[in-house]
Amino acid sequence: MSGFVLYVLGVSYISVALVLLGFAGLALLWGEDPRGFALAAGVGLALGGVLRARGTPKAEPRRAEGLFTVGVLWILVPLLGAIPYWVSGHLNFLDALFESVSGFTTTGATILDDFGKFNKSLFLWRGLTQWFGGIGIIVLFIAVLPHFAVAGRQLFFAEATGVQKDKLTPRLRHTAEAVLRVYLLLTALAVLGYALAGMPLYDALANALATVPAGGFSPSPTSFAAYPAAAQWVAVLFMYFAGANFLLMYKLIFGREIRPLLKDPEFKVYTLVVLAASAGFGFYHFVHHDYDLEASFRHSFFQATSILTSTGFASVDYETWVVPAQIILFFLMFISGSAGSAAGGPKLIRWLVVFAHMSRELRRTLHPNAVLPLRTGGKTVGEEVLRSVFAFMAFYFLLFGLGVLLITTAEGDFIVGFTASAAAIGNVGPGLGSVGPMGSYAALAPVSKLVMIFQMWAGRIELIPVLLLFNPETWRAVRRGR
Amino acid sequence: MSGFVLYVLGVSYISVALVLLGFAGLALLWGEDPRGFALAAGVGLALGGVLRARGTPKAEPRRAEGLFTVGVLWILVPLLGAIPYWVSGHLNFLDALFESVSGFTTTGATILDDFGKFNKSLFLWRGLTQWFGGIGIIVLFIAVLPHFAVAGRQLFFAEATGVQKDKLTPRLRHTAEAVLRVYLLLTALAVLGYALAGMPLYDALANALATVPAGGFSPSPTSFAAYPAAAQWVAVLFMYFAGANFLLMYKLIFGREIRPLLKDPEFKVYTLVVLAASAGFGFYHFVHHDYDLEASFRHSFFQATSILTSTGFASVDYETWVVPAQIILFFLMFISGSAGSAAGGPKLIRWLVVFAHMSRELRRTLHPNAVLPLRTGGKTVGEEVLRSVFAFMAFYFLLFGLGVLLITTAEGDFIVGFTASAAAIGNVGPGLGSVGPMGSYAALAPVSKLVMIFQMWAGRIELIPVLLLFNPETWRAVRRGR
Ligand SMILES: [K+]
Ligand SMILES: [K+]
Repeated sequence: MSGFVLYVLGVSYISVALVLLGFAGLALLWGEDPRGFALAAGVGLALGGVLRARGTPKAEPRRAEGLFTVGVLWILVPLLGAIPYWVSGHLNFLDALFESVSGFTTTGATILDDFGKFNKSLFLWRGLTQWFGGIGIIVLFIAVLPHFAVAGRQLFFAEATGVQKDKLTPRLRHTAEAVLRVYLLLTALAVLGYALAGMPLYDALANALATVPAGGFSPSPTSFAAYPAAAQWVAVLFMYFAGANFLLMYKLIFGREIRPLLKDPEFKVYTLVVLAASAGFGFYHFVHHDYDLEASFRHSFFQATSILTSTGFASVDYETWVVPAQIILFFLMFISGSAGSAAGGPKLIRWLVVFAHMSRELRRTLHPNAVLPLRTGGKTVGEEVLRSVFAFMAFYFLLFGLGVLLITTAEGDFIVGFTASAAAIGNVGPGLGSVGPMGSYAALAPVSKLVMIFQMWAGRIELIPVLLLFNPETWRAVRRGR
Repeated sequence: MSGFVLYVLGVSYISVALVLLGFAGLALLWGEDPRGFALAAGVGLALGGVLRARGTPKAEPRRAEGLFTVGVLWILVPLLGAIPYWVSGHLNFLDALFESVSGFTTTGATILDDFGKFNKSLFLWRGLTQWFGGIGIIVLFIAVLPHFAVAGRQLFFAEATGVQKDKLTPRLRHTAEAVLRVYLLLTALAVLGYALAGMPLYDALANALATVPAGGFSPSPTSFAAYPAAAQWVAVLFMYFAGANFLLMYKLIFGREIRPLLKDPEFKVYTLVVLAASAGFGFYHFVHHDYDLEASFRHSFFQATSILTSTGFASVDYETWVVPAQIILFFLMFISGSAGSAAGGPKLIRWLVVFAHMSRELRRTLHPNAVLPLRTGGKTVGEEVLRSVFAFMAFYFLLFGLGVLLITTAEGDFIVGFTASAAAIGNVGPGLGSVGPMGSYAALAPVSKLVMIFQMWAGRIELIPVLLLFNPETWRAVRRGR
């Protein structure tokens, strides 16, 4: 087996284990049961130590090694992180794994039907898994994957980062640091904002850890319906940041360069979709006297931003909204946020490429011999980017469809099948019907939970690294240590 | 305005008017009201005469002219054909147009909630619109459109027909004749088969007219549940033919060449999907004692073939089937039949191209510098075909999604929204829920009916000719007479 894979897995397990050790201490401090955290920490340190010892660091991993590592990392770390839930005695192992995968993939779909099952340290751990998952994914897509030029990602970041030209390690460190600074700053500001808006400090921290990574796990069983209006507006703001490109936000905040963000076509479309959906909902609710003026727009901005960015918080039970509003929320799950953000789903940039191609093909029908470059947002897109975008979209909707088929079959319910599948592969969290914002996934059949675990995992790392794990060639390459 | 467009419209109107005149006579003969047919015939002859006089025949129309003609023809002819329904006094104009578009596009979605509204001549006209629509579409896609090399259709037929090399008119005549011979033969055999299986002669004729074009309009309000088991098996056979490539069937029947059909990758996959879905359903129904052995497989073959080929007949009310079976039927609507057949939907060949590309992109991830040609069924597919297939798929699912959004919004019902949209754009006919096989579209809001009319029209001529009508450049080109 490739020494690189073992080394990265080992280091990751040791790192997570050290955090788990801290949680064991925290649990003791709060007078709670530390055994789950302690056991997980022990397993992590032991396995991580062995893996790290058998592995070898490598500055320039090969493509197959790199993608293989990403694929296994995003399922093996959640496996370790599931132990505290499991040992708590309130969840069976499948449910514990579901909750852990849901956390590390920043999905926020919960199997908790009774929030009394978890104590404070477990809720904080649950929030922190999202926070780790979020920064992991942003660094992965901004700094690591462009280096491998995977699936057209050169389009999204090559220009901004220049990653491809350089060696992985020094550039990785620099870009990761930039992203981490934005991430930490936003987290600190979110805690502050929530606290100032009247949230207890523990809730402010737990919710901030779930907001900045567009996660959606809240320690409150009624999500943000439990908090004051001001806290809901703070959440709208930080969910909006969570769905924007972190590298462009870095340039804005630390480099004082406003233009890269404001001129970014994806950011413009992102902002436009947020405003359009929110205004539409708000106008409807106000006209129909559902809420007063402020609350109409607050709940509309909240739900639109929450679903579009794949956060999954709720300020009201939107199950009670009219069917047209619900179907729009369902479609927002597929529109999704910006590339290089914490948002799940296909990402807006891919839709821009798809629409550019559709428009070009219509022109081509009238002018079959014209040379028509593919352009989006004033920039020319290479044909290899188009090919990879279309492959991604095909895989995305194929896996969505398979999920619909399997979950609908297992649950005997179309609404649950369609929305659970969309919410899992898009890392959104809540669906509609019995798995809506005030419901939980507890009652689902084990096979549905397994399907969703797969979808959350595959969706979060944008499919390709997971799909490659099903290709024997990948395993051969990694086994040979290439 | 282009003389060619006017000329083709004129000739088409006159031809349809002559058929309508025949129906006026038939109505008189049967002692029914001939006024609707007579009025429609009069309008058709008058308008057709004017258009033909102002137009000019043209052996080699330009691309914009050709596509424009296809686009307007498939909505203007149904408009004329709606008059008899409307004049009957039982349908308002929108409903009459819906029924007529549903007929000419071979969709078979009905707004008839009470089958007593129509007399024998109206039911026969309804069947005949499907029969005309079916042969029109097969000739269009096998003989006409490949000449314009539209949307990657060169892939499907160029090799089989050699159309692109020759001039349009002589080749069109020859290919159209070949297809028509198969179509007439199948229709005659279907009438014979139904009659031998115990159907009254009128029903045998009306149902045959709806079977061979994969239409689905039956004069019986309970569709094929009203007919004996033997007639249902006959329908399975002819629906299966309706979803196969007519040019390859021509070679088989009249050229005694078996290999082109049996070696065709699309035909193999088509047959495989029919067998797999039918066997799955049949096994389930038999094990669960829903029906006896023969009936289990009969109903399974019937529904699987009916939905896959977009016919839309029903031998049982599959609304009563379990949810897993219903969701599979829903997905079959998107899988669809062969190119060059009467089936609606995206066509299997496009799926084969999509899957070939997905598999290639996975290989490319591991071998970024390898030259990987796109191959399906042992043949290399050009990149321009891939581009057009992806544009088609994107438009297809976009229009499907828009339909879901609008119909769900208008009806306040997810099941109706999803299945009516899929059944309209795929020219299937019945959906699920209140618009299921034993229901009708009568109760839908006018806006839903308008959306479905647009989807049936656009879906039947495979989107591009309709979408081009929204491009001002097309109109400019046609107005200049190019
Ligand atoms: K989420
Ligand atoms: K049909």
